[in-house]
Amino acid sequence: MSPPTPGELPLERKVALLSGRSYTHTEAIDEAALPAITLLDGPNGLRRPGDSTEHIDPRRALPATCFPPAVAVASSWDAGVTARVGAAVGREARAFGAAVSLGPGVNIKRSPLCGRNFEYYSEDPLLAGVLAAAHVRALQEQGPGASVKHFAANNQETDRKNVSADVDERTLREIYLAAFERVVREARPATVMASYNRINGVHACENHWLLTEVLRDEWGFTGAVISDWGAVGDRVAALTAGLDLSMPGPDEDGDAEIVAAVRSGALDPAVVDRAAARVAALTRRAAPATGDADLDAHHELAVELAADSAVLLRNERNVLPLDGVRTVAVIGEFAAAPRFQGGGSGNVRATRVDAALDAMRTLAAARNATVAYAPGFSTDGGGDPAALRDEAVRAARAADVAVVFAGLPEAAEWEGTDRESLSLPDEQVELIRATAAAARRTVVVLSNGAVVSLEGWHDEVDAIVEGWLLGQGGGRALADILFGVVNPSGRLAETVPLRLQDHPSFLNFPGEQGHVRYGEGVLVGYRYFETAEVPVRYPFGHGLSYTAFETRDLRAVPTGPDTAEVSVTVANTGARTGKHVVQVYVATGAGPVRRPLRELRAFTKVELRPGESTTVEFALDRRAFAYYDVVLGAWAVAPGAYTVQIGENASTVVAESAVTLTGDLRDLPLSLDSPLADWLTHPAVGPDVVRELAAGRSEETVRQGMRTPEFRMMSSMPIRKFVKYHARGVSAGTLERLLERHGLGRGARG
Amino acid sequence: MSPPTPGELPLERKVALLSGRSYTHTEAIDEAALPAITLLDGPNGLRRPGDSTEHIDPRRALPATCFPPAVAVASSWDAGVTARVGAAVGREARAFGAAVSLGPGVNIKRSPLCGRNFEYYSEDPLLAGVLAAAHVRALQEQGPGASVKHFAANNQETDRKNVSADVDERTLREIYLAAFERVVREARPATVMASYNRINGVHACENHWLLTEVLRDEWGFTGAVISDWGAVGDRVAALTAGLDLSMPGPDEDGDAEIVAAVRSGALDPAVVDRAAARVAALTRRAAPATGDADLDAHHELAVELAADSAVLLRNERNVLPLDGVRTVAVIGEFAAAPRFQGGGSGNVRATRVDAALDAMRTLAAARNATVAYAPGFSTDGGGDPAALRDEAVRAARAADVAVVFAGLPEAAEWEGTDRESLSLPDEQVELIRATAAAARRTVVVLSNGAVVSLEGWHDEVDAIVEGWLLGQGGGRALADILFGVVNPSGRLAETVPLRLQDHPSFLNFPGEQGHVRYGEGVLVGYRYFETAEVPVRYPFGHGLSYTAFETRDLRAVPTGPDTAEVSVTVANTGARTGKHVVQVYVATGAGPVRRPLRELRAFTKVELRPGESTTVEFALDRRAFAYYDVVLGAWAVAPGAYTVQIGENASTVVAESAVTLTGDLRDLPLSLDSPLADWLTHPAVGPDVVRELAAGRSEETVRQGMRTPEFRMMSSMPIRKFVKYHARGVSAGTLERLLERHGLGRGARG
Repeated sequence: MSPPTPGELPLERKVALLSGRSYTHTEAIDEAALPAITLLDGPNGLRRPGDSTEHIDPRRALPATCFPPAVAVASSWDAGVTARVGAAVGREARAFGAAVSLGPGVNIKRSPLCGRNFEYYSEDPLLAGVLAAAHVRALQEQGPGASVKHFAANNQETDRKNVSADVDERTLREIYLAAFERVVREARPATVMASYNRINGVHACENHWLLTEVLRDEWGFTGAVISDWGAVGDRVAALTAGLDLSMPGPDEDGDAEIVAAVRSGALDPAVVDRAAARVAALTRRAAPATGDADLDAHHELAVELAADSAVLLRNERNVLPLDGVRTVAVIGEFAAAPRFQGGGSGNVRATRVDAALDAMRTLAAARNATVAYAPGFSTDGGGDPAALRDEAVRAARAADVAVVFAGLPEAAEWEGTDRESLSLPDEQVELIRATAAAARRTVVVLSNGAVVSLEGWHDEVDAIVEGWLLGQGGGRALADILFGVVNPSGRLAETVPLRLQDHPSFLNFPGEQGHVRYGEGVLVGYRYFETAEVPVRYPFGHGLSYTAFETRDLRAVPTGPDTAEVSVTVANTGARTGKHVVQVYVATGAGPVRRPLRELRAFTKVELRPGESTTVEFALDRRAFAYYDVVLGAWAVAPGAYTVQIGENASTVVAESAVTLTGDLRDLPLSLDSPLADWLTHPAVGPDVVRELAAGRSEETVRQGMRTPEFRMMSSMPIRKFVKYHARGVSAGTLERLLERHGLGRGARG
Repeated sequence: MSPPTPGELPLERKVALLSGRSYTHTEAIDEAALPAITLLDGPNGLRRPGDSTEHIDPRRALPATCFPPAVAVASSWDAGVTARVGAAVGREARAFGAAVSLGPGVNIKRSPLCGRNFEYYSEDPLLAGVLAAAHVRALQEQGPGASVKHFAANNQETDRKNVSADVDERTLREIYLAAFERVVREARPATVMASYNRINGVHACENHWLLTEVLRDEWGFTGAVISDWGAVGDRVAALTAGLDLSMPGPDEDGDAEIVAAVRSGALDPAVVDRAAARVAALTRRAAPATGDADLDAHHELAVELAADSAVLLRNERNVLPLDGVRTVAVIGEFAAAPRFQGGGSGNVRATRVDAALDAMRTLAAARNATVAYAPGFSTDGGGDPAALRDEAVRAARAADVAVVFAGLPEAAEWEGTDRESLSLPDEQVELIRATAAAARRTVVVLSNGAVVSLEGWHDEVDAIVEGWLLGQGGGRALADILFGVVNPSGRLAETVPLRLQDHPSFLNFPGEQGHVRYGEGVLVGYRYFETAEVPVRYPFGHGLSYTAFETRDLRAVPTGPDTAEVSVTVANTGARTGKHVVQVYVATGAGPVRRPLRELRAFTKVELRPGESTTVEFALDRRAFAYYDVVLGAWAVAPGAYTVQIGENASTVVAESAVTLTGDLRDLPLSLDSPLADWLTHPAVGPDVVRELAAGRSEETVRQGMRTPEFRMMSSMPIRKFVKYHARGVSAGTLERLLERHGLGRGARG
């Protein structure tokens, strides 16, 4: 006799599938041959709880490879990089017996202060979505499932379990859901993790619109929706909304509530069946731990991927790479004790950690150079800041170049708390300034999980390497970049503003009294800075190389009413092999909504030898030109002019080409209650209305009248009233016939 | 036999009271001895339709005095000025037989682009409210009633009949409703006019929360709510929401719908009775036209009030007043053909119009000076711009000083349309620059109903007088200021930004697809510029004088838990008699909400002779320190530190004094579902929770633990879950007992 299917189990046993058995495990249902599965934290490495309490304590965890977190790999602008992270994490998950790796996190960096930004990719949904999809695909090819998180609009840590992200639908669709949508559609993740927060007043875990209408009905998601840990308040409501697995467990009370709701008829048993089947389907990813991950190879990979991720922000007088220097003063505690990952559930106990100082010593020795070291500051409050600084300044003065490793202390970037300022600690700013004043040349290497301000010292140093948090191999990667073993190729995945007050989120972060208003709408990150012409320190997409690139021969041609094909040639005109990111933006004023000045619509990274060139092609799909129309409740491409731009970054356009699209926006709803202006500007009906209003006179007379302020005063009037009081020659019947003629029938305006 | 009361009338006759009989009249109910009443447009003068069609056409209207519009009188910062406007309009209304004057408009200037800003006072609700209340009181003392408009959140013209102002409640209460509230509570207007737009999706005219719960139940409004003209869509819904009189009429269809709704039982007949009684009550303001307004005296008053309103923005090298100049070149068409009011329903056919050019000639002649005139530009497209400019430059070159009258053409500021830029017309900018380059000294006099950009020419001219739209006497008033007959005393009631992109409304104006998001929340106008440290051209409150003032001896002392008394001394240290505006701001970071850097909380205007000083006192009431708490659903004063500041303007604090208030925020709701953080920071319960969590250990140990990132990760967790998983010594029962001990019972978190 074959074991029962999940649907054939008794109600209590089905319900047992719907919450965890423990902090990391689901319930095994032996009689149905459904094993327990293990879900482990960590998009950039697995957090393996080392004891039964299974709380977050890295000191008690078992080792796994700590790859560069999302903040870093996003700066690679390279889906190949995130794919290799995904595949490696997948191999370790299999080795450690985890069926699900809880990541990646694709939330948009709405504010640089968000305490969990290190786990997220970008302020841009295309970049985040493409990189995350590559991670998920590669991870799942290894067997285990991914859990794309935190769904959705979980863009801050303050009050995270209660706060309602109050966001209009266009903004949700274009910015905050778009990366999730891409991952779900393109990479088919095994699970999606519903977030703690509320969205427009409704908890994500109890949000039927989000978890069922959008995620499943529209995007075709077929996997299991699991909760963020402890996110579910009302188990029955969550189940009804489309949440399948509530974690962690056990949750006897909640299980009992579900059983009671079914018994009382308040909950359709089919809802339980459906969720149980989805959780049961997950168990096919369960497999015994093999222990056979090659951790040495993974460490080397971690080094390599880190080197692809760091961003060279500034390099005056080509102070980098450190060719031919004889003496290097390495300053800053982070050189010896790297800051390489963020705090909280994503924290990994690394298998080993490379310090930049050691790696620099090795590279220097091979070049007959010497390295001196001074800690410069202390993150644990030990030591006298002035004495530490003086020691560093002496070292800097004695060297050809000083390299200062600065950054944020670990406690500043921790799940559950947002930062309150962009500043580096004061003593580090003082250290950088004192070093720069004393040193012949100064390089600053930053370790930070989210944007820090460079003001107060930027102009005083020669070079800046933004290392973000680079994982356990970051130290070696940074040394390779500093000495030119690797040519840096990272590009900023988030804007570095001049001041926190300049940021579009400044007005509304982190909200108050249970609500955060996404007041900037779609103008998030560079979309705002470019549109409002607000100067920044470094724009989205910025990053230098040790070689130079040229862009030429841009061609963009429509391939349909709402698509286009782009080709562009890039050449390495410098003296070193290097990688270049081709960034394709689209700019338009078309349509009834405010468009950002430009939006990233495609990108790719190419490696070129000196003198080499290549032509890259992009097929821009409909979404590259579309906006989300809340009246239609659908994506739409407005007819009009679009400019395809190749950006050195979001702020600097190096080539552009215009295309005109006919679009796909024709059946705009219209009714007799629609304002006169909507009728007059309707692409299909407008010309006919003018003809009717002319009633024999010349249409130009009507159009002239329409330009007077007296007429414009009436333009927001429902046309029904307008024709009644001001255009008695045209009747409501005339208008209804017009609607029918254009197949718009009795459409109501939303 | 006495006539029937409104309630005794047959249903149809009651209903006849609820919509107009014509564009400006209500229905007379002779059998109830209820006369028709006339409602005329115009806060700053009455628009008297001159024929039966009664459409908006100033050419067919009958004359009335055009006093300075709200944009101008707001710059007087003088309730005495608005009271005198109100009284004069009241006298004319009585003379012309109008029972209601449709004004004032107290909408907040959310964006400088709003096409109706000339009818509104300020970006600050205190300034708008105080000035409007004085207008209403004085007007109604004359007999006729006022109609405070446009209620509410009608802050743009684009799509005005459909657009939903999407605004959170704190912002509504603190910014957009506050001026209405003050006028209703302090001046008891006869009517309030419900606006065209929707508020959070519900039409103002059908908004029960707005028209009944807030306006009547909270604020105690007892008058009639009338609709903006043509604003009512659904008569039954409007009546149910609290709208009494739908204008204009006739509206037989709507009347029939109401009758049918009562007959079918869908509408409570008491609703009709109540509205009919309110409209009937209005008829006591009906009176036969007496025709006896002293229009000559009113013209002189219009001149005097205009002179109180203009703002001297810049006066380098004391180029003004024009003492001792021999030759003046007056340039610009507006000198001869004044731009003195806005377009639309508020347009008045003035009894006469003084041109600045004529007045300047008179004043110059008395001083043995000569005046040359060149039109410089043409607003009707006539003339060759280059030739006009050349002529002006020649005149400027030949004179001691050039005075350029620039501004916006009438069509740029018209009800029903918003502007798209802050710029003056290009040819005027060129004219100013060319004049400034040629003239020895250059003065610019501006005529504009809303803020224009001064960039591109500001630094090239010596003086700028912002004349706004000054009404029919503005020309003489400007001449008086230019020649020093009047010492200017206006202060900006709205910020002059450097760029449109700097404005807090930039991201969300005028909205799209039927919605405009008030994304900047309470950070409107100077509240934003000061909080975000965004530089402006001229801050709110700015204005120069021909004399100098000194502020000293500021004292601020609490007079209760949530009130304070302020006294400050002002001295005229210059050589001329002049008026000074004492601006009292309050700054605080207290409470659970984001506070603007400072907010105007009191002001007064004093006139001082040279060497004279005076001490002014302010009683700051509770609202001067309060914020609107959306969780409590009430105003609250948070305990904490407050700084009372005397501002030269919103940006320049000249004296400050700290007060500490105990506040009135004690009964914050709290439940077991409230986050741990809310419990720990609760003013009453917080200390007890810490004691319980300590469970015998030192409380300092607990407090130390609370500072770790691991603990802070849990701070948004509902305390119910926290004690279950992480603090097993404390039970839900313990917490419930704590709530009871503090009288918080079973409060639920909003």
